[in-house]
Amino acid sequence: MKDKILIVKAGGSLIDCEAKWQHFLKEFAAIKKPKILVHGGGKSASALSKKMGLTPRIIHGRRVTTLEDLPLVIMTFAGLINKKTVAALQSYGCNALGLTGADANCIRSSKRPTTPIDYGYVGDIVSIDTSVLLQWLNLGITPVFCALTHDGHGQILNTNADTIAAQLAIALHDLFETELLYCLEKPGVLLDSEDSDSLIKTLDYYQYEKLKHNHQIHSGMIPKLTNCFTALQNDVKKVTIGDTSLLREDCPTGTRIILKKD
Amino acid sequence: MKDKILIVKAGGSLIDCEAKWQHFLKEFAAIKKPKILVHGGGKSASALSKKMGLTPRIIHGRRVTTLEDLPLVIMTFAGLINKKTVAALQSYGCNALGLTGADANCIRSSKRPTTPIDYGYVGDIVSIDTSVLLQWLNLGITPVFCALTHDGHGQILNTNADTIAAQLAIALHDLFETELLYCLEKPGVLLDSEDSDSLIKTLDYYQYEKLKHNHQIHSGMIPKLTNCFTALQNDVKKVTIGDTSLLREDCPTGTRIILKKD
Repeated sequence: MKDKILIVKAGGSLIDCEAKWQHFLKEFAAIKKPKILVHGGGKSASALSKKMGLTPRIIHGRRVTTLEDLPLVIMTFAGLINKKTVAALQSYGCNALGLTGADANCIRSSKRPTTPIDYGYVGDIVSIDTSVLLQWLNLGITPVFCALTHDGHGQILNTNADTIAAQLAIALHDLFETELLYCLEKPGVLLDSEDSDSLIKTLDYYQYEKLKHNHQIHSGMIPKLTNCFTALQNDVKKVTIGDTSLLREDCPTGTRIILKKD
Repeated sequence: MKDKILIVKAGGSLIDCEAKWQHFLKEFAAIKKPKILVHGGGKSASALSKKMGLTPRIIHGRRVTTLEDLPLVIMTFAGLINKKTVAALQSYGCNALGLTGADANCIRSSKRPTTPIDYGYVGDIVSIDTSVLLQWLNLGITPVFCALTHDGHGQILNTNADTIAAQLAIALHDLFETELLYCLEKPGVLLDSEDSDSLIKTLDYYQYEKLKHNHQIHSGMIPKLTNCFTALQNDVKKVTIGDTSLLREDCPTGTRIILKKD
């Protein structure tokens, strides 16, 4: 039987609130089984951009990473957030190692084609080196990835953290029984985004398509759920979306994503 | 017989000139034996501070790292410089892994006492985990350290890159025959800092004390040379200061530092 591994993506406003982030990190550090953390950038990159006088460009709800934005993105993602997260995890007894895809050539990507839309310095994942990840996990090290990869020719590229998490879970499924958790501030996928009592406990692809069609699932939740279904279609064992309480094994919470109901 | 390892510190204006830095990284990547790179911050942290409206505080020629400076230092050292360096080294065929002392708990430090001078969030090295470094080196990974450590309680601390390099060389001398190189833009220790023909080829402690007394060696070269002599007193095999040509084994250049002349 394969060992289990948890791939946890955390982001959104969870990362912007220091108290909530520290609570999340304490819970994450307490998980005994092998684990990997992937974190988003929160609002810090946009905040720094504004301070530096840059105006973010958004196309179809997605941010463009210009040549001027890229250094700020690298500074906040790989510098400030990643290293503060690593230092905090170390203080909670978790032997964290902060990473971009460039480090030890873990995750290679290629710059997204500029047509039909030019998103700038954004990378689509090409390959993941699972052997080095396995060696680190065997040493008791917990990899902590920020949302950056590289093209192998010296170029760092901004890469969606949800996608990195899903692709890590897929890449590792030969070696482990992989479980993918998307941690947000909200308790999971909600029928009404303002009402946390409207939590959907189990969501299959058919229901997802219906809710998307009715605009009950929209904006950022759509690419997140696309990553969830891609993971399940590629043999990731279990996918859940929810808040920090997801990390406690004793109380199953959140929205369990499944391909189809039996 | 022990294997050899090179610990290379690079910094100063070498890091601020993109063409010179890429040349250095190409030469560094080409070194076949096990190696570790430690890089300084160049002028980028000060430049960012100024853009953010902060005024650097200098006491006795040393910069104070205030609570406001620390995030900028982390962003530039661990983010921008470290990750661009890693991505460039990867493109030159060197399997680099970017690190702070917090990553995998490599280098622990304690915050420097605030008396007689309060330098702020500055750390003095307490311990180095050589076992994890050895495991990485055995995997063909080249550690690339920036000038940051942690106290194990969640606090990242600014730590002099010259000292990190010397302490790494000392910590590794049980496992390797260690050689320490300080790479600058200048060809080595000069009798007249404006005249590169005034290179001192070999410098021992007696001569150093004499030149320091006569103010021929001054400012930043003093703490650098203190690190050199500390390394030699603690069984580091060879210590040299010079420019990028130091990295070529076929042409010995720079200033060789020794404890005393035979």
